[in-house]
Amino acid sequence: MAEALTRLETEDLQGNLHEVQELLRRQKVVETLVGRQEMAKHALVEQLVHKQHLTELRTKLDKLHAADIAYILEALPLEERLAVWDLVKADRDGEILLEVSDAVRESLIAAMDPRELVAAAGTLEADQLADLAPDLPADVLEAVVQALPLEERERMRAALSYAEGTVGALMDFEMITVREDVTLEAVTGELRRMESLPDHTDQLFVVDRAQGLLGTLPLSRLIVSDLALEVGRVMVPERVELHPEDGAEDAASAFERYNLVSAPVVDVRNRLLGRLTVSTVVDYIRQKSAQAQLAEGGLREEEDIFAPVLNSFKNRWSWLAINLVTAFIASRVIGAFEGSIERLVALAALMPIVAGIGGNSGNQTITMIVRALALGQIQAAYWAKLLAKELGVALLNGVVWGTLLGVIAYALYKNVALGGVMALAMILTLVLAALMGVAIPWLRARFGKDPAVGSSVLVTACTDSGGFFIFLGLATLILV
Amino acid sequence: MAEALTRLETEDLQGNLHEVQELLRRQKVVETLVGRQEMAKHALVEQLVHKQHLTELRTKLDKLHAADIAYILEALPLEERLAVWDLVKADRDGEILLEVSDAVRESLIAAMDPRELVAAAGTLEADQLADLAPDLPADVLEAVVQALPLEERERMRAALSYAEGTVGALMDFEMITVREDVTLEAVTGELRRMESLPDHTDQLFVVDRAQGLLGTLPLSRLIVSDLALEVGRVMVPERVELHPEDGAEDAASAFERYNLVSAPVVDVRNRLLGRLTVSTVVDYIRQKSAQAQLAEGGLREEEDIFAPVLNSFKNRWSWLAINLVTAFIASRVIGAFEGSIERLVALAALMPIVAGIGGNSGNQTITMIVRALALGQIQAAYWAKLLAKELGVALLNGVVWGTLLGVIAYALYKNVALGGVMALAMILTLVLAALMGVAIPWLRARFGKDPAVGSSVLVTACTDSGGFFIFLGLATLILV
Repeated sequence: MAEALTRLETEDLQGNLHEVQELLRRQKVVETLVGRQEMAKHALVEQLVHKQHLTELRTKLDKLHAADIAYILEALPLEERLAVWDLVKADRDGEILLEVSDAVRESLIAAMDPRELVAAAGTLEADQLADLAPDLPADVLEAVVQALPLEERERMRAALSYAEGTVGALMDFEMITVREDVTLEAVTGELRRMESLPDHTDQLFVVDRAQGLLGTLPLSRLIVSDLALEVGRVMVPERVELHPEDGAEDAASAFERYNLVSAPVVDVRNRLLGRLTVSTVVDYIRQKSAQAQLAEGGLREEEDIFAPVLNSFKNRWSWLAINLVTAFIASRVIGAFEGSIERLVALAALMPIVAGIGGNSGNQTITMIVRALALGQIQAAYWAKLLAKELGVALLNGVVWGTLLGVIAYALYKNVALGGVMALAMILTLVLAALMGVAIPWLRARFGKDPAVGSSVLVTACTDSGGFFIFLGLATLILV
Repeated sequence: MAEALTRLETEDLQGNLHEVQELLRRQKVVETLVGRQEMAKHALVEQLVHKQHLTELRTKLDKLHAADIAYILEALPLEERLAVWDLVKADRDGEILLEVSDAVRESLIAAMDPRELVAAAGTLEADQLADLAPDLPADVLEAVVQALPLEERERMRAALSYAEGTVGALMDFEMITVREDVTLEAVTGELRRMESLPDHTDQLFVVDRAQGLLGTLPLSRLIVSDLALEVGRVMVPERVELHPEDGAEDAASAFERYNLVSAPVVDVRNRLLGRLTVSTVVDYIRQKSAQAQLAEGGLREEEDIFAPVLNSFKNRWSWLAINLVTAFIASRVIGAFEGSIERLVALAALMPIVAGIGGNSGNQTITMIVRALALGQIQAAYWAKLLAKELGVALLNGVVWGTLLGVIAYALYKNVALGGVMALAMILTLVLAALMGVAIPWLRARFGKDPAVGSSVLVTACTDSGGFFIFLGLATLILV
């Protein structure tokens, strides 16, 4: 692994980027010159200059960490991105492909021929290859798998067999195992024969002959213990054992709660299958949080900021379509009261306020509940208590904002009854919002669905149509 | 630190919770009995049973990890929460207070007397104490600080002096330093004299006499190297050096990119001040992602799910007030066109569709841009390119959805001109949404504000009022 002497500051990250761009620009100038004067005597000299810039750029790239090259690739428009990609040493292609975002990875893979891809994938470990597999053309994947040693092939098959979002899909196989009846002296001697320890090796795993996990030997214990002792005397019972079917989210919580650096993954018979490291967990958490953010904003997946218009359209149309349907329903609710609006046109101006505040309030309730559910804080017995509390908040909000809006409506239209209808509609809509805000995640959780997905759209749909219906319905009953 | 043999599954987390609740329930039954028969002869026996349940509960709690007790406290209503809190060993109060959410911490601190608080805070390290400081009463804090040894007091003062969201506020002081001219043999001997190494000690920091950082000695290198060598021969240059003023977000990116377990924090003269560990970074990332989620949903901070109605109201009112103002402005825009709506009431039913889709589309643009900005992917030179792309997506969306909506409007109201106005208004509103979706984060970033904060409210306000204005304005010009 390339160990660049990299400093933290984003200025430096962007500094790298700017340096690369400057070198690209200079090279381009030269290319243009060479093009124009192709027949001139100076062509040879120009080509040498050209080569020199390329060499400079290549040297710069060689010194960067794979993650930093990934950053540069993501921040460059397609043409320049591919120019840089061409200059990256072939044996680093694999690790860089793992670091870039899905959308950018697609653009890079599309620019590589099968032979290059096979070579790039060939530099990866089984678990990394499994991560890359979905993005590789079938024939490339086949060729790479064929070239793997048997053990690696088995591991890759295992890693691919676990669903996304499970520990099995995230684990790696770079754990070091030791037997309990050897001395620490012998263990240390064994370690010294290795060139270096795998990243995130904070502990060795103690296993029996059948790979059954007996405990772990933290490096910090190995260092402070008497080397004449046997492993079995020094090892500690594993604090957390993961199973490949466990949810990655639960594993992430365990890493967070118990401050882990690595944890063993075992099968039902307690045999060691692999390990999970905190760096994988950090990547997972960041990715999940990004996905939640994107989904919240109505994007299906991370967008390459330089993606063609059509790609962006594909990423966004489904969300707009869903919202079109809910907006259409709300529109038909209003349509049912067109007679009332015709007679009292103030209703048209006031109705979006009721629906809007209802939607916001419902989303507050849902956000709170979805989060508490994710943290496992809501037990079955407490739903009624929670509903009571949310209804209480809704009533309080309703009285406060309803009164304020009633007064505003009266001030605008000098119509006391209209002010009263506005206030009452606000209270009822907020109560509806609270009911829906509790009921929707409760129902989704009860039927085993992820309460976070789509709850916000659903509650907004209810409060929009419901808010219009309540306000216009009350107005029709009382005013018109 | 209590090392429970805890297994991952959430079932177990909830299992602990249920066990505690069962014990609480039994204890309560006994208390009721004791209350009723206070004068009876059996009182003494009952009290013994009572005591036995308490002991059982206390034993259960003693075996749990601090983070697991925090989970139980967060999931219990106030009364039961305080009953459990009373049973927790006093010397663990400090670490548990650090683990619970802000809202629950408040409820626990409110139930403790100053003496208990001083004792609890006294068990913490300087950096942990700094984390707790904002929630402690001034006199308690004063008493604890007075009791600290001079070095710790200095460290705490240092930690408190850095703003929230900086590396300085997150760093700890549990790093082990060594000199470069000693042998690994001597280092190992030194380490063996320690009872145990601090959590997340993956490397020792090599410093000169003035605490200047020279490099680091990874444990994995210490283990595999010849013990006769000097530290200076084996150490590696530090890959990442943090400064206390660096943003925590940047530090988190560095941990993610370079897969770090710990990193040194140095001052401008390169003197070692402390270290940052991956477990702090994981906590920070989780907290930031939770805050973003809460803010997105309109909550000011994490809510204790059992908070009184008034606390929830306080947490939520500001968001509703902001939305009330924007809804009011949109309402006045509609009010300006009341004459047109009176003459063609279909406008009232159709206008929310235009505004709603515009808002959704604007939020898609903003989500994409805010995320790319956070990742540092957008350079000054690319804003124009980005705007062009977003306008392209908006036009494509406008033609697709505008045509569809135009046809629907025609089908509903048999009015060709109305269908045309609907289609045209949809296109223009989507273009407005794209403009605002790019301009708002660009302006906020340009003036050094966080582009994520409030961008969504602003764009929705623009598309709501703008959408109503465009649709009703076009209708007034063309139809009425």
